[in-house]
Amino acid sequence: MKQQTITESGTTIKKSKNVFYNSLMELNRSISIALLKAVNKKNMIVCLPMAATGIRAIRMLKELPKSAIKEIHINDIDKIAVKNIKENLKLNKLTARDKRIKLTNKDGRLLMLEQGGYDYIDIDPFGSPNTMLDIAILKLARGGIFAVTATDTGALAGTHVRAGLRKYWAKGMKNELMHELGLRMLIRRVQLTGADHEKALFPIYAFATQHYYRVFFICKKGRKLADEVVKEHAYLLYCKKCLSRQFNKINHAVCCKNIPMQWAGPLWTGQLWDRQLAEKIYKSLQNDLTYKIKLESEIKDSLLFYDLHKISKYYRFPPPKTEDALGRLKQKKVKAALTHFSDKGIRTNIKIKQFVNIIKKPSKK
Amino acid sequence: MKQQTITESGTTIKKSKNVFYNSLMELNRSISIALLKAVNKKNMIVCLPMAATGIRAIRMLKELPKSAIKEIHINDIDKIAVKNIKENLKLNKLTARDKRIKLTNKDGRLLMLEQGGYDYIDIDPFGSPNTMLDIAILKLARGGIFAVTATDTGALAGTHVRAGLRKYWAKGMKNELMHELGLRMLIRRVQLTGADHEKALFPIYAFATQHYYRVFFICKKGRKLADEVVKEHAYLLYCKKCLSRQFNKINHAVCCKNIPMQWAGPLWTGQLWDRQLAEKIYKSLQNDLTYKIKLESEIKDSLLFYDLHKISKYYRFPPPKTEDALGRLKQKKVKAALTHFSDKGIRTNIKIKQFVNIIKKPSKK
Repeated sequence: MKQQTITESGTTIKKSKNVFYNSLMELNRSISIALLKAVNKKNMIVCLPMAATGIRAIRMLKELPKSAIKEIHINDIDKIAVKNIKENLKLNKLTARDKRIKLTNKDGRLLMLEQGGYDYIDIDPFGSPNTMLDIAILKLARGGIFAVTATDTGALAGTHVRAGLRKYWAKGMKNELMHELGLRMLIRRVQLTGADHEKALFPIYAFATQHYYRVFFICKKGRKLADEVVKEHAYLLYCKKCLSRQFNKINHAVCCKNIPMQWAGPLWTGQLWDRQLAEKIYKSLQNDLTYKIKLESEIKDSLLFYDLHKISKYYRFPPPKTEDALGRLKQKKVKAALTHFSDKGIRTNIKIKQFVNIIKKPSKK
Repeated sequence: MKQQTITESGTTIKKSKNVFYNSLMELNRSISIALLKAVNKKNMIVCLPMAATGIRAIRMLKELPKSAIKEIHINDIDKIAVKNIKENLKLNKLTARDKRIKLTNKDGRLLMLEQGGYDYIDIDPFGSPNTMLDIAILKLARGGIFAVTATDTGALAGTHVRAGLRKYWAKGMKNELMHELGLRMLIRRVQLTGADHEKALFPIYAFATQHYYRVFFICKKGRKLADEVVKEHAYLLYCKKCLSRQFNKINHAVCCKNIPMQWAGPLWTGQLWDRQLAEKIYKSLQNDLTYKIKLESEIKDSLLFYDLHKISKYYRFPPPKTEDALGRLKQKKVKAALTHFSDKGIRTNIKIKQFVNIIKKPSKK
């Protein structure tokens, strides 16, 4: 069988025909490893139910300290993928004698159901993670980390509204905020299933990039904590005239001249990042994404971000440079930062009118 | 081990200590059998993942025509229950030689995951059915029937609002409509999981009685059909001043003197019953419940029901007898019927003011 040789972050694997490998996901995997290094958990029982070529498993085994992983369950429902994983383990000198490794070929849900519990589960599908969520969350241990990828961003970002309602039980909104809204809809979807199991899933790191969304949750147990999570679910209301926005349990409000605001969601309105974790991840993996997230993780209770291009167009003033706008905000002691969601975006917690007043260039006298 | 002897609808079983048996559920089981007789499916592969004493399985095997069941998977996660089921099968001359019967002792989800597909699945827990839903729906065949019981009515009926939000992802409302609203919230919860699997679950028979809710769905496959289901999810808005109500995608509206209406849901706003099925069930099992459901199943697009006591109190007129009110409505050619949800309720599709005008006793001249 013809195979392709791939090298990613220093690890070389072979990719069999029809086994899924996405080079754009290298960043996803690198961030996952940086995150696990940062949280520094020991003796984890790890589950990768959709392992494909095994690249993620192999990188985890090679790049994480040996004490991190007690057991790693590598699984794929596809026979050819499992054969491919076996080859790749061997190629990387990770043999069957390594008692930490358990390689299986079955429905990932079956694998998880048969297990007592996991400290780290990574749901990394092509498409939606949904059909794995219920069992994965059931088997997520107290304090465990749950990593979820979604590549069906069209359903979440408002391009395919009906698909969003069907799969994520929330309505997307196609505008400059679409990816942050979509990511927050994905988070709520996962959290609802968590709440059902009396598990509170708090995001500790999340991002939208290169046509996929990725979220890491920490799992806490208990009804009250689950209720705390659900309390933070609300709609995002958006005025298409003045670009103001608010979170609201009611999907109705009026703005400029009594125009009804548009709505998206319901979605998670809480923090997307643990600030300290974002800093640690940036320290161990420096790139544009981790840098911006480190910055924006410092803004509490943001009203998402403002897009400088759109705002200057709507409010009819020349768009300032991002650094200039940030400088002016800083001068006024407003908390503001870059955002990874948009090159022209500024994350802040002030309202639109105040924002416009500050960043608008003073008219020449 | 001390056992209790129980006879239900002509079937005698023994109940071991700590194995769950609820005599109030006799009606639930009798209706299930009447429904399966009415739909008259042949060669079904049946799953009872939470079988307890086995009473439901035994009654199905004894009371349904032999051609109905091709295989019946009787399971309980509890060892003692499975031993109890074995005894009860024997007691009812259903021996291990009956190749249709497969008795197992495992997590019901594991059992279902290992199976190709089922034509009838009955989720009959003590409490919430939620943690079984995802896998059960995954394994529900096209045209299959899905039966779901919930006994945690407090979470659905608005007594425990937070529990409702956590488990059913919707807000209950504690008033005269609470059980119909709760039942509709349960239906939506099941349908959301269905939509995720691209399965459209349409209720064909549903009721709330004796501290539990029960719904039977028929499973149709396809994205478009799943979208049709989701389209019928909305909030119920309720004016506590004039008692008017409406279904609305927006959880806000104002009524009498601009008072904001109360809201419940989201919930299923479509039909609860297949009219012809309700008639057939009544024919084979005649009681107060099946009678009222037969009647109310004829009312299309109802605005739930009006409670005569509450309405006469709010509108300050002497409460008419239910028959008198129905008579007056009939005279005016308004579609109206009794409802099983309330002894003093009338199901109709007209608005409150029209309803009040018709049923109010003409003042004596």
